[in-house]
Amino acid sequence: MSLKLAVGSYDPAAFFVRREVTDMSSEEHVTRKSRTLIHAGTIIDYYQDEMLLPNGNTEIWDFVKHRKGAACIVPITKDGKILLVRQFRPALERYTWEIPAGQKDSVGEDPLQCAKRELREETGYDSDHIEKLLSLQSTVAFCNEAIDVYLAKDIYPVGTQQLDDAEAIDCKLWEIEDVLALIDSGKMEDGKTIAGILAALRRI
Amino acid sequence: MSLKLAVGSYDPAAFFVRREVTDMSSEEHVTRKSRTLIHAGTIIDYYQDEMLLPNGNTEIWDFVKHRKGAACIVPITKDGKILLVRQFRPALERYTWEIPAGQKDSVGEDPLQCAKRELREETGYDSDHIEKLLSLQSTVAFCNEAIDVYLAKDIYPVGTQQLDDAEAIDCKLWEIEDVLALIDSGKMEDGKTIAGILAALRRI
Repeated sequence: MSLKLAVGSYDPAAFFVRREVTDMSSEEHVTRKSRTLIHAGTIIDYYQDEMLLPNGNTEIWDFVKHRKGAACIVPITKDGKILLVRQFRPALERYTWEIPAGQKDSVGEDPLQCAKRELREETGYDSDHIEKLLSLQSTVAFCNEAIDVYLAKDIYPVGTQQLDDAEAIDCKLWEIEDVLALIDSGKMEDGKTIAGILAALRRI
Repeated sequence: MSLKLAVGSYDPAAFFVRREVTDMSSEEHVTRKSRTLIHAGTIIDYYQDEMLLPNGNTEIWDFVKHRKGAACIVPITKDGKILLVRQFRPALERYTWEIPAGQKDSVGEDPLQCAKRELREETGYDSDHIEKLLSLQSTVAFCNEAIDVYLAKDIYPVGTQQLDDAEAIDCKLWEIEDVLALIDSGKMEDGKTIAGILAALRRI
């Protein structure tokens, strides 16, 4: 029974109270008839999916496959400062402040190892108190990119940055209230960074 | 002066205190030499960018252009319940719980109008107290998708859902603690939803 039909004559407030949420059958949502690889990119592959709608029509949908997935980490010092990295993002054509992050080396890599590596390489810091914060999907409408988000407490410096040839990264320890002001003003935009920091603040 | 060189002989903790964060010159970060459209998709376009690295080498990077941008809204009732929508996401091949969201009708559409429309169409609810929460970029490494995130307080039902042919959406009013448990357990994954809800909880 589709929701569209079911609510036709109901007040939605009453409906929400009454209806049990159960799995919808495949007849009720779009299903994929075929998937065609259009281009194998550098870190992603671009596909076109032919989708069958519940009404019997078909549509072409975009699908971006992120090959390896990613991990990121919210690094916080013992005295409550947040360590962020700043870099130029060509996709946005501007600089961003973000939490340390990177692609996994392979699909099977432990995301915790990836997160620890990115913290060490991008900032020169390490932590002995790392915990999982979030399992995040960055953009569910057309892409499967999964990002595991960790919290690193009591971070401490262990050496210098270890950057690759494409990376030029500034680091800065931020007061929490200054980060929140950036988020509230719309000047800090990166989704994983906002979600990670706000989740971390519930744990410290 | 590149950070990589600058920190070579320094303790990073001292470095962070000492160094002013200033704009890096274009010689210090990757720059785009050319951009080639590979495929014009349905809601996105896929490009290959030829990037010049600071060391003089070139690399091919992916760029996904999201044509119109999007908006979403965290709907909260007067008694503190959060209204979420559940739908099948073909890119993930599973159902998700999300805040109401959708593409803008055009690049120039006011994102607030888009957010109000998605709330109305996907849930049948409206609000007279809507405020901006976040300016969010969903996946900064390779895509320019921008999502404006709003908070709708004191939502009230005004009618039934108004879904398009591809949509099959369940709605449910959630207790805040149950939503937080889903986030903490990794069962609620959508980035804009997690960021939006955690940001909203700082405002109510």
